[in-house]
Amino acid sequence: MRRTVIGVMGPAAAGEALEKAAYELGRLIAEEGWVVLTGGRDCGVMDAASRGAKSVGGSTTVGILPDDYRAGEISDAVDIAIFTAMGDARNAINVQSSDVVIACGAATPGTLSEVALALKVEKHVVVLGAGPEGRQFLSVCGGDRIHFADTAADAVAQVRRLLAAL
Amino acid sequence: MRRTVIGVMGPAAAGEALEKAAYELGRLIAEEGWVVLTGGRDCGVMDAASRGAKSVGGSTTVGILPDDYRAGEISDAVDIAIFTAMGDARNAINVQSSDVVIACGAATPGTLSEVALALKVEKHVVVLGAGPEGRQFLSVCGGDRIHFADTAADAVAQVRRLLAAL
Amino acid sequence: MRRTVIGVMGPAAAGEALEKAAYELGRLIAEEGWVVLTGGRDCGVMDAASRGAKSVGGSTTVGILPDDYRAGEISDAVDIAIFTAMGDARNAINVQSSDVVIACGAATPGTLSEVALALKVEKHVVVLGAGPEGRQFLSVCGGDRIHFADTAADAVAQVRRLLAAL
Amino acid sequence: MRRTVIGVMGPAAAGEALEKAAYELGRLIAEEGWVVLTGGRDCGVMDAASRGAKSVGGSTTVGILPDDYRAGEISDAVDIAIFTAMGDARNAINVQSSDVVIACGAATPGTLSEVALALKVEKHVVVLGAGPEGRQFLSVCGGDRIHFADTAADAVAQVRRLLAAL
Repeated sequence: MRRTVIGVMGPAAAGEALEKAAYELGRLIAEEGWVVLTGGRDCGVMDAASRGAKSVGGSTTVGILPDDYRAGEISDAVDIAIFTAMGDARNAINVQSSDVVIACGAATPGTLSEVALALKVEKHVVVLGAGPEGRQFLSVCGGDRIHFADTAADAVAQVRRLLAAL
Repeated sequence: MRRTVIGVMGPAAAGEALEKAAYELGRLIAEEGWVVLTGGRDCGVMDAASRGAKSVGGSTTVGILPDDYRAGEISDAVDIAIFTAMGDARNAINVQSSDVVIACGAATPGTLSEVALALKVEKHVVVLGAGPEGRQFLSVCGGDRIHFADTAADAVAQVRRLLAAL
Repeated sequence: MRRTVIGVMGPAAAGEALEKAAYELGRLIAEEGWVVLTGGRDCGVMDAASRGAKSVGGSTTVGILPDDYRAGEISDAVDIAIFTAMGDARNAINVQSSDVVIACGAATPGTLSEVALALKVEKHVVVLGAGPEGRQFLSVCGGDRIHFADTAADAVAQVRRLLAAL
Repeated sequence: MRRTVIGVMGPAAAGEALEKAAYELGRLIAEEGWVVLTGGRDCGVMDAASRGAKSVGGSTTVGILPDDYRAGEISDAVDIAIFTAMGDARNAINVQSSDVVIACGAATPGTLSEVALALKVEKHVVVLGAGPEGRQFLSVCGGDRIHFADTAADAVAQVRRLLAAL
């Protein structure tokens, strides 16, 4: 009965290309019937992935917010808001709660912390749009739990294969 | 678009009467179309409230677990599991994320901590089945944010009124 | 080699009498050679207990702050500041890290949450200045782990006995 | 009055060379009169840095443990143990509470998460013993807040300069 949850992590200040990819990720994940989990805020990859998911009928989005419930700044596309009021420490919750983590880029500190925390607790991570330095270093760090993708469709295909093997 | 979330808190080792009330709470909350949020474990009030909710078609249950995702002990009736791996500190998240909190009893330390943390962040709390000492003390502590109910139906009726006034 | 740590919990907005008791607690705990642990902010019981401790030469005070390190509002009498940036969830850390917890009053939500969280993890709690409702209810809730004191000196004497029995 | 706190982060399973460097770091930091903050466990870089610090008279070591206080596994060289019982989420506290962070290596997930979390909250990080991939990638990620050192003495010299400029 428990739902499969796919985390989509990425910067609050993402460029247009990354937001477009995040929207597409959200849409494709929702079409698989999986829950989309993000950091829940109303900006960047979090908002785009949630909006992409909500473009699919019957989808469910969960936002794990760093803020107090009185702080505002929640994406309109979040169905279920979990308010942690614990800032970046909530990044550990994001990855604990995701069956597989997709990171949109890895070279911003917040997203990198989620990639690292996910690897620490033995989660598989698919990094979309990593630069050459990121690919090289994260391969050293993540071993066979780190994966790279160039498109949203490729990332979701890899998640499908990883879930099947869990 | 955001869903209304009602937290149901209570001991892991509840007696039969309290579990029956928790099941009924879960059922009634789900019938209102609200999400049931619990501590997510496979015992006591958490499990009973989740099972009650899942007896209603189309319901959604969220469990905010104290444990690492590798620890097991999750209620089968939890749809969306949020693994915090942070023990009792997750009690603060439970109440932050609930629009209104219902406590099944208040005289066990874990549940009492949730009542207190909820009051601390200005949430309304409905306590079901409080003894006379609890009613007296929590009235001192909670002022007009603490409410008492004798039955699950009464608790949910109070939640409905509180939500309307938020 | 590890230092004994005594937590002093209490409201940010304490009256004069409670602050005076907290100052005295801090002083007496420091004179025993124990570390004084508080919530670290520059107000109420936290600040008073830390200042009392620092009136004793060679004392050590630890503040477990709810805020980000950039937020300010730290007591000048805190030697070692631990910034959690996790709001009330840090209350669980306060009690986990105290060998015995002293609560100054128990009828304010924040302090009550610390009393409850301490009992949840099997810590002994000495409540100073509890009202009659609080004594009655907390006795139900805390069993033989809850203790009451009328003066700072009595509270510290009880801590000494509890530590000897740990 | 507040003490300067330097965090020393690094893997629980470090090789002999890294442990030797961590011991030396602890010793040099303590000689500066700064508090040494680690993850507090009885292994790897945490234990070595704490032991190095305690080889200096009058030193203070703080351990921010991931575990419940009943779990054991604390370094004997920790003076003040802060028990978070919140697993890897405590990594965010480690870096929030350090005026400057020194990472012993950066290619293990736990340490990398601390480097990333530190950069996220605008802390300076000195990485000791980074490989070429790590240097290249973390330079992209950390900008002018990331620094590299080849020896413990060099790392501490850099910390001294960074503190002077804060």
